[in-house]
Amino acid sequence: MNGADLLCDTLLANDVDVCFANPGTSEMHFVAALDRKPQMRCVLGLFEGVVSGAADGYARMAKKPAATLLHLGPGLGNALANLHNAKRARTPMVNVVGDHARHHLQHDAPLTSDIESIARPMSHWVRRIGSPEGVGEDAGEAIAQARRQPGQISTLILPADCAWTDLPEGTQARKVAPLAAALTDSDHVKTVARHMAAARKAGKRVVLFMGPQAIEGEAAQVAGRIAQATGVQLMTPTAFRRMQRGQGAVDIARLPYVVDLGTKALADCAELILVGVNAPVAFFAYPGKASEIAPASCEVRRLSRNDEDALHALQALAEALGVPAHGASVGAAPSIDLSAPSNGKLTSAAVNRLVLKALPEGAIVVDESVTSGREIAQLNMGAAPHDWLSTTGGAIGQGIPTAVGASVACPTRQVVSMQADGSGMYTCQGLWTQAREKLKVLTIVYANDTYAILHGEMQAVGTQEPGDNARRMLDLDQPSLNWSQLAQAMGVPSRRVDTVEAFVDALKAGLAENGPFLIEARI
Amino acid sequence: MNGADLLCDTLLANDVDVCFANPGTSEMHFVAALDRKPQMRCVLGLFEGVVSGAADGYARMAKKPAATLLHLGPGLGNALANLHNAKRARTPMVNVVGDHARHHLQHDAPLTSDIESIARPMSHWVRRIGSPEGVGEDAGEAIAQARRQPGQISTLILPADCAWTDLPEGTQARKVAPLAAALTDSDHVKTVARHMAAARKAGKRVVLFMGPQAIEGEAAQVAGRIAQATGVQLMTPTAFRRMQRGQGAVDIARLPYVVDLGTKALADCAELILVGVNAPVAFFAYPGKASEIAPASCEVRRLSRNDEDALHALQALAEALGVPAHGASVGAAPSIDLSAPSNGKLTSAAVNRLVLKALPEGAIVVDESVTSGREIAQLNMGAAPHDWLSTTGGAIGQGIPTAVGASVACPTRQVVSMQADGSGMYTCQGLWTQAREKLKVLTIVYANDTYAILHGEMQAVGTQEPGDNARRMLDLDQPSLNWSQLAQAMGVPSRRVDTVEAFVDALKAGLAENGPFLIEARI
Repeated sequence: MNGADLLCDTLLANDVDVCFANPGTSEMHFVAALDRKPQMRCVLGLFEGVVSGAADGYARMAKKPAATLLHLGPGLGNALANLHNAKRARTPMVNVVGDHARHHLQHDAPLTSDIESIARPMSHWVRRIGSPEGVGEDAGEAIAQARRQPGQISTLILPADCAWTDLPEGTQARKVAPLAAALTDSDHVKTVARHMAAARKAGKRVVLFMGPQAIEGEAAQVAGRIAQATGVQLMTPTAFRRMQRGQGAVDIARLPYVVDLGTKALADCAELILVGVNAPVAFFAYPGKASEIAPASCEVRRLSRNDEDALHALQALAEALGVPAHGASVGAAPSIDLSAPSNGKLTSAAVNRLVLKALPEGAIVVDESVTSGREIAQLNMGAAPHDWLSTTGGAIGQGIPTAVGASVACPTRQVVSMQADGSGMYTCQGLWTQAREKLKVLTIVYANDTYAILHGEMQAVGTQEPGDNARRMLDLDQPSLNWSQLAQAMGVPSRRVDTVEAFVDALKAGLAENGPFLIEARI
Repeated sequence: MNGADLLCDTLLANDVDVCFANPGTSEMHFVAALDRKPQMRCVLGLFEGVVSGAADGYARMAKKPAATLLHLGPGLGNALANLHNAKRARTPMVNVVGDHARHHLQHDAPLTSDIESIARPMSHWVRRIGSPEGVGEDAGEAIAQARRQPGQISTLILPADCAWTDLPEGTQARKVAPLAAALTDSDHVKTVARHMAAARKAGKRVVLFMGPQAIEGEAAQVAGRIAQATGVQLMTPTAFRRMQRGQGAVDIARLPYVVDLGTKALADCAELILVGVNAPVAFFAYPGKASEIAPASCEVRRLSRNDEDALHALQALAEALGVPAHGASVGAAPSIDLSAPSNGKLTSAAVNRLVLKALPEGAIVVDESVTSGREIAQLNMGAAPHDWLSTTGGAIGQGIPTAVGASVACPTRQVVSMQADGSGMYTCQGLWTQAREKLKVLTIVYANDTYAILHGEMQAVGTQEPGDNARRMLDLDQPSLNWSQLAQAMGVPSRRVDTVEAFVDALKAGLAENGPFLIEARI
């Protein structure tokens, strides 16, 4: 057994049994170790942005970390954008980044770089393995840190010689104890509850602003009961990790992306109660506009810190508010009209409605629809029950890889990947992994040949009619991309459609496929 | 005039008139400023690895920096791998990375990250613009630093409010004075010359090991004269920025990538003289193998530091050695057989020979052929005179973007991009920019459906027969990529061929095209 074997065994002993990978020479001993462990599922990405994005999607659905395998500083660099998104999602992840052997570093070989510096901005925890004997302890700590609530990015740097050196006979991997989440102080909860009750009694608008843990599963149910009993409203940031949506789900509003709409959504809010999340801020600053979304008159109170157990905090809040433990957690099912025209020119509005209407129960919707799908948030409560995963850190190119990972975690569920074209091009290589792994992912590309969001921003800075240089940087036309061909080039069957009729047909075909399919929706 | 205008004007005043870009919201005021300056050529990349790789290729050929425009930490992250390659090439480059407005940073909005930390490992110089008034000075310094010999990566962080704030009337861009390169001490040169002469007199093998500046243009000619007059040999590292090759060029040997071959190439070298480069080291460490490539018995002497003027150092060396100032710099043209079979199954050997034989004079060969094209180094002196650009930092995905930049710099010259398939997938989006800009780039993809280099490395670690997990990480088959379709999806005409006859036809068609073309060579 060498260091690489011990690393592999430690991952497996702690239930980390999927490795999204793009290895290189310095990781070859780790690859050989993985090769000796068929119980580890290795999934190749043809670019590291696919690797990190897939690990994100996987953990969102599996509720446990995957490992990634990355090749030195540049490989980690390629993974950074989706690590940034995963860090913002608070997704648990264990990155293994190979580096040169310890004695080789001093020679500044071409692939040498300062891996720690590259890793830190997009990791919660970084460690360089110092010796072959230390591999087990370091790997265990990386896993424990990744699992720390509400989820962390661990990055472990593995020098090649620490992987290739043989260890004493009898060396064994150990299972690490989970780090318990902190619990919110009960007196503090009571104080918050008193303020909330007083505000509600005075007829004021109170909003529970909820983080990643609070909007999922049991926590969302408790929040729903609180809302039902007290009339407080539930909201989450624009960018969130995972939410249950559709008929019967607790309706948690998503804060709109556009600053003015966000401000409007909270305009008359008197008390904003933070549950494992920070107060809402604008994605970007604009001249003359505030960064904070809540009005200055709004009292912002924190129920629980981001590292505290959100379910516990919400349960304690419910109790303090006297909310019945088994009351209803949702109101009447909202009546949402998902009807769309049955023919004619395809539009993003038609795509959104047709997809949501056709969504099979238990689907996983990966949403990188950017401008084209903004109304999904208002419509998807009318669909069959499903999970909804959003882009979290604002780094585009998350959709296709996240769909890969979600499908690896839940192979029997239909993944529907709602993908803007400009963003999709960032990590289009992920389509190949969908084909390789035969993943049941239906990708819908909103093909409008432009970074539509940036045209809006150009207008916001006062440029009504962009000139040649601006258009050359904001539009994807000349030439227009052929997504259907792109998918087929990577082994994913596809159709290119521009009418409602053809889209409906393609949607039927795509959902019937027992593997990946892509629809290029020309809108 | 606002800060963004001043930045744009400062770039133009200093002859930086090409900007490879992928902007986002925080850069919108800079986009608006670029839009007001039609003399700035803006080239969009659909992924930032294309942007940084293109800026590298551009500067290698134009001998001046391009600007890049990148969107916050994740955009910079996506650019890192090719920035790493450019840094190792010592390519001059000015990166402009947009960031949130200064007052917005404290709110930790979703796209906030520690940009300095991400930038430093792959930059020689990093600065955050502190105020709108400071934009001009900071931009000037960034350009001066980029131009510092032998070339540096400058990264300038531009907070959105420093871009959008209006400046006092009369604010003007200034031209910055170049930073002069240091000159090698003449006594030191004489000492090195004495050692070299003595070694040669004793019949010993002496190798001039030459860095990026030394192998180009006039410096290469001087080195050639020294070699001709004294019998010393000329060599450069495996990874180099730009070399003139083909008939009539000074023959500078490329150190082989494979450690054992490199060691063999320097086995009997008694004196290794470093000219603006470090002593050769293995790309990777291997158990039981030395990191240094030169034998322990070899005397390693430094003629000039990496930041010293290599041309000046070589001229001084020639003078000290008494080499005639106008002597011949090359020996007899080497006789190299580029003949290939005229039919049958296509092989990488046939591709290499057929391409080199058909190479038009003045072509620019961008070489990311990895394993398939290793013999190009031995063959290309038999081709017509051309420039040869290599992957420098070992980060794959450099070829397609570098070809973009080289062609933007030299639009009338034929660029031939020799591209391994696995590496090409990293930045395949660059094909779209080739179509958008109608660049005369002929891409040859060596389609072998595998990371062939890693199979060799697996054998080196003792795995003769890779198992399922290893094969799943080292092979690109199941499904096989269709590069021809991929190219067409991005607007690049293409052919997919697997016989010599079809390849010869496709080569003719590709070279006749007045724009991009791709040949998928199934080997």
